[in-house]
Amino acid sequence: MLTVPKEVIIKEVGPRDGLQNQPSEVPAEDKINWINQLTEAGYSYIEISSFVHPKWIPQLKDARQVAAGIKRDPSVTYAALVPNMKGLEGALETDVDEISVFMSASETHNKKNINKSLSETYPVLKEVIDEARLAGKTVRGYVSTVFGCPYEGDIPTDQVIEVSKRLFDLGIEELSLGDTIGAANPLQVDRVLTELEKHFTFGQLAMHFHNTRGMALANTLVSLEHGIITFDGALGGLGGCPYAKGASGNVATDDLVHMLHQMDIRTGIDETKLQKAARFIQSKLNSALPSHQMQIWNKQQEEG
Amino acid sequence: MLTVPKEVIIKEVGPRDGLQNQPSEVPAEDKINWINQLTEAGYSYIEISSFVHPKWIPQLKDARQVAAGIKRDPSVTYAALVPNMKGLEGALETDVDEISVFMSASETHNKKNINKSLSETYPVLKEVIDEARLAGKTVRGYVSTVFGCPYEGDIPTDQVIEVSKRLFDLGIEELSLGDTIGAANPLQVDRVLTELEKHFTFGQLAMHFHNTRGMALANTLVSLEHGIITFDGALGGLGGCPYAKGASGNVATDDLVHMLHQMDIRTGIDETKLQKAARFIQSKLNSALPSHQMQIWNKQQEEG
Repeated sequence: MLTVPKEVIIKEVGPRDGLQNQPSEVPAEDKINWINQLTEAGYSYIEISSFVHPKWIPQLKDARQVAAGIKRDPSVTYAALVPNMKGLEGALETDVDEISVFMSASETHNKKNINKSLSETYPVLKEVIDEARLAGKTVRGYVSTVFGCPYEGDIPTDQVIEVSKRLFDLGIEELSLGDTIGAANPLQVDRVLTELEKHFTFGQLAMHFHNTRGMALANTLVSLEHGIITFDGALGGLGGCPYAKGASGNVATDDLVHMLHQMDIRTGIDETKLQKAARFIQSKLNSALPSHQMQIWNKQQEEG
Repeated sequence: MLTVPKEVIIKEVGPRDGLQNQPSEVPAEDKINWINQLTEAGYSYIEISSFVHPKWIPQLKDARQVAAGIKRDPSVTYAALVPNMKGLEGALETDVDEISVFMSASETHNKKNINKSLSETYPVLKEVIDEARLAGKTVRGYVSTVFGCPYEGDIPTDQVIEVSKRLFDLGIEELSLGDTIGAANPLQVDRVLTELEKHFTFGQLAMHFHNTRGMALANTLVSLEHGIITFDGALGGLGGCPYAKGASGNVATDDLVHMLHQMDIRTGIDETKLQKAARFIQSKLNSALPSHQMQIWNKQQEEG
């Protein structure tokens, strides 16, 4: 009865989306060590940082150092997020493989997040995407608040489609659909994907779930049933959401990979190495990571 | 694409399966107060305790007092778990509405749990079920380790079917399929239910998930797609598992109900009252409950 892909691509966003929301700053050398462990664990894609002004995200002020310091495996795509041309310049100097750009499907969230209306955002992204492609880079787009906005509530799917189309027209190769506040439910994911499939192929879309209300793996399941093969995650469930009090982080890659492997879906990732990498970054953050895999491990340590 | 029932029945097992695994004992008057709040929240079914020797489960030694003390709403079924005739006598004296019996699908787990082989268990349950039915009570059966055993690993589905058939032959009206160690994954649930549907109707089966590896809501989703309409949960994610170190509790009823309501599936439960009841029992346990709904609330309190 259940029809799901045999193999999926996991994109690790922990070094960027995870660490940018952590209260404590991790030294660049630990980030480099961690990203090297992620490479070793078998990821094909790691978003290593964001080239953004340190005034906005001090946790990622060492993007250049991290990008320069990691060991590059030629079979892995190392990506960096950039908000504008200044960010792109930094990213291109470090020769990352792929550039990510982002905007919101919600007018209000976009305004609060990057101080621009949706229509003011396109020209900025156009310049970034054109320049990145000229430099030989592929570009990934993130659309946030696809499944709900902390200010506007529900976002009409037509608006998500409009923003998505504009981003593909500008030259992105993949779109990551963000459940920024972790409010998506499986019925909604089913409905939104049913609409999106009329305009995009499943290979163009990635799902970016947060686990705020515990529904991320259920939302992953319904996405798999729709044929989606690309999922973002942050190891250990790192992260959080600055807009929703109490909101928890990205879906934990370790929990996601565990479920997929149990379902006989290949990811190319070694779970033992993945969990070792999760314990490493937990030790550097000095606070317990929320993934179920890490909760089990932490409890086992407590109990001896 | 997603086809799920419009309405489901939630059976609250927190007062029994949740509290029996808590390190701290809750006074009977607090349990009574809590169960009254659960009634108020709109449940149609509450398993209030277990009539078992206090040597085995001291946390539930006040079963009689609790059963006698709660306010009974005639539209709610109040059930109690019993392991044997002695337990049944206690339960019948307090005139609960329904009796639950239990055994394992795993020979080893059954032996370790109730010190009997599977074949030695049936006559004991037969006597209990016969006597309960003579007293005018309906009987619910639990089968544990359906999706994996801490000692034997995978349990053949044929063995689950065999045990289930025997229990229905003995006179149970509903069977609750337990993922005792919280190891079930959606593909496995799909496969097991596909087999079980050849022998039982979906109305005879209930799902009893634990959230040890974060898959309980994904497993719920695939069960809903199979037409299952009855789900067990423990409010706040209470509980644990004495057999698996680090294993977390039952699926949290508050997270389950939230997902169902977001999916436009009716439960009859008032989420506001439910969350109030979760906060009440949390305050009596003096430790943070693990449900996502409670994590959000607890974090909001911390952050002011």
